[in-house]
Amino acid sequence: MTATFPTAPDSHALERGAVLAPSFDANGLIAAVATHAATGEVLMLAWMNAEALQATLDTGEAHYFSRSRQALWKKGETSGQVQKVVELRVDCDQDAVWLKVDPQGDGGACHVGFRSCFYRVVEDGKLVERP
Amino acid sequence: MTATFPTAPDSHALERGAVLAPSFDANGLIAAVATHAATGEVLMLAWMNAEALQATLDTGEAHYFSRSRQALWKKGETSGQVQKVVELRVDCDQDAVWLKVDPQGDGGACHVGFRSCFYRVVEDGKLVERP
Repeated sequence: MTATFPTAPDSHALERGAVLAPSFDANGLIAAVATHAATGEVLMLAWMNAEALQATLDTGEAHYFSRSRQALWKKGETSGQVQKVVELRVDCDQDAVWLKVDPQGDGGACHVGFRSCFYRVVEDGKLVERP
Repeated sequence: MTATFPTAPDSHALERGAVLAPSFDANGLIAAVATHAATGEVLMLAWMNAEALQATLDTGEAHYFSRSRQALWKKGETSGQVQKVVELRVDCDQDAVWLKVDPQGDGGACHVGFRSCFYRVVEDGKLVERP
Protein backbone atom coordinates (compact mmCIF):
# COMPACT_ATOMS: atom_id res chain seq x y z
CA MET A 1 0.00 0.00 0.00
CA THR A 2 1.28 3.42 -0.88
CA ALA A 3 -0.08 6.41 0.95
CA THR A 4 0.46 10.04 0.14
CA PHE A 5 -0.75 13.19 1.83
CA PRO A 6 -0.64 16.74 0.51
CA THR A 7 1.80 19.34 1.78
CA ALA A 8 0.30 22.47 3.28
CA PRO A 9 1.09 25.44 1.02
CA ASP A 10 1.58 27.88 3.89
CA SER A 11 1.44 28.16 7.66
CA HIS A 12 -2.19 29.28 7.68
CA ALA A 13 -3.23 26.16 5.78
CA LEU A 14 -1.04 24.07 8.06
CA GLU A 15 -2.44 25.53 11.26
CA ARG A 16 -6.02 26.44 10.44
CA GLY A 17 -6.83 24.50 7.29
CA ALA A 18 -9.25 21.62 6.90
CA VAL A 19 -6.79 19.55 4.86
CA LEU A 20 -4.84 16.82 6.61
CA ALA A 21 -1.28 17.60 5.50
CA PRO A 22 1.07 15.85 7.91
CA SER A 23 4.53 17.30 8.22
CA PHE A 24 6.70 14.20 8.19
CA ASP A 25 10.28 14.54 9.40
CA ALA A 26 13.46 13.68 7.47
CA ASN A 27 12.76 10.01 8.19
CA GLY A 28 9.17 10.28 6.96
CA LEU A 29 7.70 10.06 10.44
CA ILE A 30 5.36 11.93 12.75
CA ALA A 31 4.96 11.30 16.47
CA ALA A 32 1.81 9.60 17.73
CA VAL A 33 0.62 9.64 21.32
CA ALA A 34 -2.11 7.23 22.35
CA THR A 35 -4.28 7.85 25.39
CA HIS A 36 -6.94 5.61 26.88
CA ALA A 37 -10.29 6.91 25.62
CA ALA A 38 -12.01 6.17 28.92
CA THR A 39 -9.40 7.17 31.50
CA GLY A 40 -7.25 9.68 29.60
CA GLU A 41 -4.07 7.93 30.70
CA VAL A 42 -1.18 8.24 28.27
CA LEU A 43 -0.57 4.68 27.12
CA MET A 44 2.30 4.97 24.68
CA LEU A 45 4.22 7.14 22.29
CA ALA A 46 5.21 5.82 18.91
CA TRP A 47 5.77 6.91 15.33
CA MET A 48 3.78 6.78 12.13
CA ASN A 49 4.83 7.05 8.53
CA ALA A 50 2.30 7.94 5.82
CA GLU A 51 1.35 4.30 5.37
CA ALA A 52 0.72 3.78 9.09
CA LEU A 53 -1.39 6.92 9.33
CA GLN A 54 -3.43 5.96 6.27
CA ALA A 55 -3.92 2.42 7.57
CA THR A 56 -5.07 3.83 10.90
CA LEU A 57 -7.58 6.12 9.19
CA ASP A 58 -8.79 3.36 6.87
CA THR A 59 -9.23 0.64 9.49
CA GLY A 60 -9.98 2.57 12.69
CA GLU A 61 -7.24 0.57 14.40
CA ALA A 62 -3.87 2.03 15.33
CA HIS A 63 -0.94 1.27 13.05
CA TYR A 64 2.55 2.53 13.75
CA PHE A 65 5.99 2.42 12.17
CA SER A 66 8.63 0.55 14.09
CA ARG A 67 11.87 2.50 13.99
CA SER A 68 13.86 -0.49 15.22
CA ARG A 69 12.37 -2.92 12.71
CA GLN A 70 11.82 -0.25 10.02
CA ALA A 71 8.44 -1.75 9.28
CA LEU A 72 4.74 -1.02 9.45
CA TRP A 73 3.30 -2.42 12.62
CA LYS A 74 -0.33 -3.00 13.49
CA LYS A 75 -0.58 -2.59 17.24
CA GLY A 76 -1.83 -5.80 18.82
CA GLU A 77 -1.23 -8.01 15.83
CA THR A 78 0.64 -10.50 18.00
CA SER A 79 -0.24 -9.31 21.53
CA GLY A 80 -3.97 -8.87 20.96
CA GLN A 81 -3.67 -5.34 22.32
CA VAL A 82 -5.41 -3.88 19.26
CA GLN A 83 -6.24 -0.20 19.68
CA LYS A 84 -9.68 0.83 18.43
CA VAL A 85 -9.40 4.51 17.55
CA VAL A 86 -12.17 6.57 19.12
CA GLU A 87 -10.80 9.94 18.02
CA LEU A 88 -7.75 11.12 16.12
CA ARG A 89 -6.44 14.66 16.50
CA VAL A 90 -3.58 16.49 14.82
CA ASP A 91 -1.52 19.29 16.35
CA CYS A 92 -0.98 22.85 15.15
CA ASP A 93 1.99 22.15 12.91
CA GLN A 94 0.72 18.71 11.92
CA ASP A 95 3.82 16.84 13.00
CA ALA A 96 2.09 14.90 15.77
CA VAL A 97 -1.18 13.06 16.21
CA TRP A 98 -3.14 12.21 19.36
CA LEU A 99 -5.17 9.02 19.30
CA LYS A 100 -7.82 8.33 21.90
CA VAL A 101 -8.03 4.56 21.86
CA ASP A 102 -10.01 1.71 23.32
CA PRO A 103 -7.43 -1.03 24.00
CA GLN A 104 -8.61 -4.55 23.21
CA GLY A 105 -7.26 -7.85 24.50
CA ASP A 106 -6.03 -7.55 28.07
CA GLY A 107 -6.50 -3.78 27.93
CA GLY A 108 -2.79 -3.06 28.13
CA ALA A 109 -0.44 -1.30 25.75
CA CYS A 110 3.07 -2.07 26.97
CA HIS A 111 5.23 -5.04 25.98
CA VAL A 112 6.77 -5.07 29.47
CA GLY A 113 3.40 -6.00 30.92
CA PHE A 114 2.12 -2.74 32.34
CA ARG A 115 -1.09 -1.05 31.22
CA SER A 116 0.80 2.03 30.09
CA CYS A 117 4.38 2.27 28.87
CA PHE A 118 4.83 5.20 31.27
CA TYR A 119 4.94 3.10 34.45
CA ARG A 120 7.93 4.89 35.96
CA VAL A 121 8.06 8.29 37.63
CA VAL A 122 11.28 10.29 37.91
CA GLU A 123 11.77 11.16 41.57
CA ASP A 124 14.94 12.81 42.82
CA GLY A 125 16.66 11.72 39.63
CA LYS A 126 15.70 8.05 40.11
CA LEU A 127 13.03 5.98 38.40
CA VAL A 128 10.28 4.58 40.59
CA GLU A 129 7.74 2.11 39.23
CA ARG A 130 4.28 3.46 39.83
CA PRO A 131 1.91 1.89 37.30
CA MET B 1 25.29 23.96 30.42
CA THR B 2 26.26 20.46 29.44
CA ALA B 3 24.12 17.54 30.50
CA THR B 4 24.92 13.89 30.23
CA PHE B 5 22.94 10.82 31.15
CA PRO B 6 24.14 7.22 31.40
CA THR B 7 23.34 4.58 28.81
CA ALA B 8 21.46 1.52 30.04
CA PRO B 9 23.75 -1.53 29.81
CA ASP B 10 20.96 -3.91 28.78
CA SER B 11 17.24 -4.09 28.15
CA HIS B 12 16.41 -5.08 31.72
CA ALA B 13 18.17 -1.99 33.06
CA LEU B 14 16.46 0.09 30.38
CA GLU B 15 12.98 -1.24 31.11
CA ARG B 16 13.01 -2.06 34.80
CA GLY B 17 15.98 -0.18 36.22
CA ALA B 18 15.94 2.77 38.60
CA VAL B 19 18.51 4.70 36.57
CA LEU B 20 17.29 7.42 34.23
CA ALA B 21 19.10 6.49 31.02
CA PRO B 22 17.28 8.23 28.17
CA SER B 23 17.65 6.69 24.75
CA PHE B 24 18.23 9.72 22.56
CA ASP B 25 17.78 9.29 18.82
CA ALA B 26 20.33 10.02 16.09
CA ASN B 27 19.61 13.72 16.53
CA GLY B 28 20.05 13.54 20.30
CA LEU B 29 16.35 13.89 21.01
CA ILE B 30 13.54 12.15 22.86
CA ALA B 31 9.85 12.88 22.48
CA ALA B 32 8.03 14.71 25.25
CA VAL B 33 4.27 14.79 25.67
CA ALA B 34 2.75 17.32 28.05
CA THR B 35 -0.68 16.83 29.57
CA HIS B 36 -2.63 19.19 31.81
CA ALA B 37 -2.12 17.96 35.37
CA ALA B 38 -5.69 18.83 36.33
CA THR B 39 -7.70 17.82 33.29
CA GLY B 40 -5.47 15.20 31.64
CA GLU B 41 -5.83 16.88 28.27
CA VAL B 42 -2.86 16.42 25.94
CA LEU B 43 -1.50 19.93 25.50
CA MET B 44 1.47 19.50 23.20
CA LEU B 45 4.12 17.19 21.88
CA ALA B 46 7.68 18.41 21.60
CA TRP B 47 11.26 17.20 21.80
CA MET B 48 13.99 17.34 24.42
CA ASN B 49 17.72 16.94 24.14
CA ALA B 50 19.81 16.07 27.20
CA GLU B 51 20.18 19.72 28.12
CA ALA B 52 16.42 20.34 27.96
CA LEU B 53 15.66 17.28 30.06
CA GLN B 54 18.25 18.22 32.66
CA ALA B 55 16.98 21.81 32.79
CA THR B 56 13.44 20.52 33.26
CA LEU B 57 14.54 18.27 36.13
CA ASP B 58 16.63 21.01 37.72
CA THR B 59 14.06 23.79 37.54
CA GLY B 60 10.73 21.98 37.66
CA GLU B 61 9.68 23.92 34.58
CA ALA B 62 9.42 22.39 31.12
CA HIS B 63 12.27 23.00 28.70
CA TYR B 64 12.28 21.65 25.17
CA PHE B 65 14.54 21.61 22.14
CA SER B 66 13.25 23.45 19.11
CA ARG B 67 13.96 21.39 16.02
CA SER B 68 13.24 24.35 13.73
CA ARG B 69 15.46 26.76 15.64
CA GLN B 70 17.91 24.06 16.81
CA ALA B 71 17.99 25.64 20.24
CA LEU B 72 17.03 25.03 23.84
CA TRP B 73 13.67 26.56 24.56
CA LYS B 74 12.10 27.26 27.92
CA LYS B 75 8.36 26.95 27.39
CA GLY B 76 6.64 30.21 28.21
CA GLU B 77 9.77 32.35 28.18
CA THR B 78 8.10 34.82 25.84
CA SER B 79 4.44 33.74 25.99
CA GLY B 80 4.21 33.43 29.75
CA GLN B 81 2.84 29.90 29.28
CA VAL B 82 5.43 28.44 31.66
CA GLN B 83 4.73 24.79 32.49
CA LYS B 84 5.22 23.83 36.12
CA VAL B 85 6.02 20.13 36.12
CA VAL B 86 3.85 18.19 38.55
CA GLU B 87 5.12 14.75 37.52
CA LEU B 88 7.56 13.43 34.95
CA ARG B 89 7.36 9.86 33.68
CA VAL B 90 9.53 7.91 31.28
CA ASP B 91 8.40 5.10 29.03
CA CYS B 92 9.57 1.49 28.83
CA ASP B 93 12.40 2.05 26.36
CA GLN B 94 13.21 5.50 27.74
CA ASP B 95 12.85 7.30 24.44
CA ALA B 96 9.85 9.35 25.51
CA VAL B 97 8.77 11.31 28.57
CA TRP B 98 5.33 12.29 29.80
CA LEU B 99 5.05 15.52 31.73
CA LYS B 100 1.99 16.37 33.76
CA VAL B 101 2.09 20.15 33.90
CA ASP B 102 0.33 23.08 35.45
CA PRO B 103 0.30 25.76 32.72
CA GLN B 104 0.92 29.29 33.94
CA GLY B 105 0.04 32.58 32.27
CA ASP B 106 -3.21 32.34 30.33
CA GLY B 107 -3.29 28.59 30.91
CA GLY B 108 -2.73 27.74 27.26
CA ALA B 109 0.04 25.87 25.51
CA CYS B 110 -0.40 26.56 21.80
CA HIS B 111 1.08 29.44 19.82
CA VAL B 112 -2.00 29.50 17.58
CA GLY B 113 -4.09 30.57 20.56
CA PHE B 114 -5.82 27.39 21.59
CA ARG B 115 -5.46 25.77 25.01
CA SER B 116 -4.05 22.61 23.47
CA CYS B 117 -2.11 22.22 20.23
CA PHE B 118 -4.46 19.35 19.37
CA TYR B 119 -7.48 21.52 18.55
CA ARG B 120 -8.41 19.68 15.34
CA VAL B 121 -10.10 16.32 14.95
CA VAL B 122 -9.77 14.24 11.81
CA GLU B 123 -13.27 13.43 10.58
CA ASP B 124 -13.88 11.71 7.24
CA GLY B 125 -10.37 12.68 6.22
CA LYS B 126 -10.94 16.38 6.95
CA LEU B 127 -9.76 18.50 9.88
CA VAL B 128 -12.43 20.02 12.08
CA GLU B 129 -11.55 22.54 14.78
CA ARG B 130 -12.90 21.31 18.07
CA PRO B 131 -10.86 22.88 20.88
